[in-house]
Amino acid sequence: MTMSKLLELLVAHSGQYVSGEMISRELNVSRTAIWKQIHKLEDQGYEIEASRRLGYKLISVPDKYSLDDLNEQLQTAAFGRSIHLFEQVDSTQNVAQKLAEEGAPEGTLVIAEQQLSGRGRMGRAWMSPKGKGVWMSLIMRPTIPVHFAPQLTLLTAVALCRSLARLTSLPIGIKWPNDLLIDGKKISGILLESTAEDARLRYVIAGVGISVNLASSDYPEEMQERVTSLRIASGERLSREAVIAAFMLEWEQLYTLYQAEGFAPVVTLWEALSVSLNKPARLTTPQGIIDGTPVALDESGAIAVRLEDGNVVLVFSAEMGEPVT
Amino acid sequence: MTMSKLLELLVAHSGQYVSGEMISRELNVSRTAIWKQIHKLEDQGYEIEASRRLGYKLISVPDKYSLDDLNEQLQTAAFGRSIHLFEQVDSTQNVAQKLAEEGAPEGTLVIAEQQLSGRGRMGRAWMSPKGKGVWMSLIMRPTIPVHFAPQLTLLTAVALCRSLARLTSLPIGIKWPNDLLIDGKKISGILLESTAEDARLRYVIAGVGISVNLASSDYPEEMQERVTSLRIASGERLSREAVIAAFMLEWEQLYTLYQAEGFAPVVTLWEALSVSLNKPARLTTPQGIIDGTPVALDESGAIAVRLEDGNVVLVFSAEMGEPVT
Repeated sequence: MTMSKLLELLVAHSGQYVSGEMISRELNVSRTAIWKQIHKLEDQGYEIEASRRLGYKLISVPDKYSLDDLNEQLQTAAFGRSIHLFEQVDSTQNVAQKLAEEGAPEGTLVIAEQQLSGRGRMGRAWMSPKGKGVWMSLIMRPTIPVHFAPQLTLLTAVALCRSLARLTSLPIGIKWPNDLLIDGKKISGILLESTAEDARLRYVIAGVGISVNLASSDYPEEMQERVTSLRIASGERLSREAVIAAFMLEWEQLYTLYQAEGFAPVVTLWEALSVSLNKPARLTTPQGIIDGTPVALDESGAIAVRLEDGNVVLVFSAEMGEPVT
Repeated sequence: MTMSKLLELLVAHSGQYVSGEMISRELNVSRTAIWKQIHKLEDQGYEIEASRRLGYKLISVPDKYSLDDLNEQLQTAAFGRSIHLFEQVDSTQNVAQKLAEEGAPEGTLVIAEQQLSGRGRMGRAWMSPKGKGVWMSLIMRPTIPVHFAPQLTLLTAVALCRSLARLTSLPIGIKWPNDLLIDGKKISGILLESTAEDARLRYVIAGVGISVNLASSDYPEEMQERVTSLRIASGERLSREAVIAAFMLEWEQLYTLYQAEGFAPVVTLWEALSVSLNKPARLTTPQGIIDGTPVALDESGAIAVRLEDGNVVLVFSAEMGEPVT
């Protein structure tokens, strides 16, 4: 049995169940063979509902980026104006880093339908199934000292939060430093990797993963309580081109403002969107555990945490978790 | 003619001139062939004095690292305790970076007899002739926020300056941020490359080049006014193993102090060794040119510069040059 024959049959009955019996008869194959081919189609990004009684129903075909569509929607001067689109990469971060070393200009964007080993913070893996989300890396070449690089992480979170909230009207908040949450569940990941020579920042690779059209079933069960997608939260599929175009515009505008006026406007916006302030938390830092209440974002990008004894300390890098009661 | 025969002849007459005529007769080769082989020996690190009238005299054979000697001299706990020695590399920075990505521990040291494309600051080349200097990179994994990475550049300069001054009794000073000078001429280069993930420093590769036993003739003529070596300045050859061992000890001690007590002790030491303070200068920064007088080292590693109007500004990254009068 060729997979395309099975697919033809499902497409011909789009929106309806096709019984295993019928497929078996039409294509002259065993039920087990059908089941195997269905799994292969799912791996390719087809969504298929399976019912023991009713058979199989094609829900959606894999989404594919259209560069024409994306270019038409882009309203930026530099961000996303040079796009490198891949069907499959190990990690868009690695590709962008290579391009940056070769001299690619600021705003160069790397997107992939699928990442085989997408990277998250702290060396964790980032799940990037085919066609279901925005898996991207942008090259930035800001003329700021390396001290200020962490400010770009917060700037990126603000831009992404504002663009997604505008596009979906969903209540999206920022958990320090840069997780976006809907009802406490994560919808995106941001990872800025910077390379510096003494105090001079050479370039920054901003990696962003946005869970756009993933279904609950795309996540392993043990993750479902902690993660969501724009589709799950809104009940609607979104155009990934529209998501990227909205994000690039917001990001470039905020970046331009930042270069002209400094970090202060970003702090104001970040604090307004934050869901981390004024709630007790436990922060796990490389230097140890800190229990306290985050009260403000510092100039440097660190978070100011008020301890039980009333003292306020700056925390530069940590995992923020629930307070221990 | 094999090169080894020529070398045997020169070694047999060490410290004396061997005439071209004699070589020509003994080895039965032309004067032009001799001259070519002499050049090849020089490329390999042999120092040979040539006199049109007297012939050739072997001055020195190439210095080779002895790991046994180096290990015996090392007095550190971690710095230099794992050594990767290469005859020839493109750049010790690249090798160390690869090792760091593979998980090599803090203190891992990469040294090479020769670098083919040693890197300096601002993408410049660094000359690293075979056996004549210390061309090295050390992996550091400090648990400090990325904001503080530039402090390590200054710490490294202080440690190198103190160890070389102790070893040679030469008057060595630090030009901000990290050039070591003897009588205004550069004897070493320091380049710290750091890799960060958001505000978390992943690792730092500290590249250090020390001009130990280079002769004036090893430098292109146009460089001779700006550079020197410990040998040129002191009139003596130094053991590179002794240089490395002294540097590693001073560096590890200062790094340990820094991790315990912060940057303040480093600032004190740096200011005491500095030749940049309280003298007018022109600083060329990525943001533009600043004319003023450096007055102090800031907590962040930046230099505080007093402008003509009396205001003081912080400069994070710049080339420091002569004032324009």
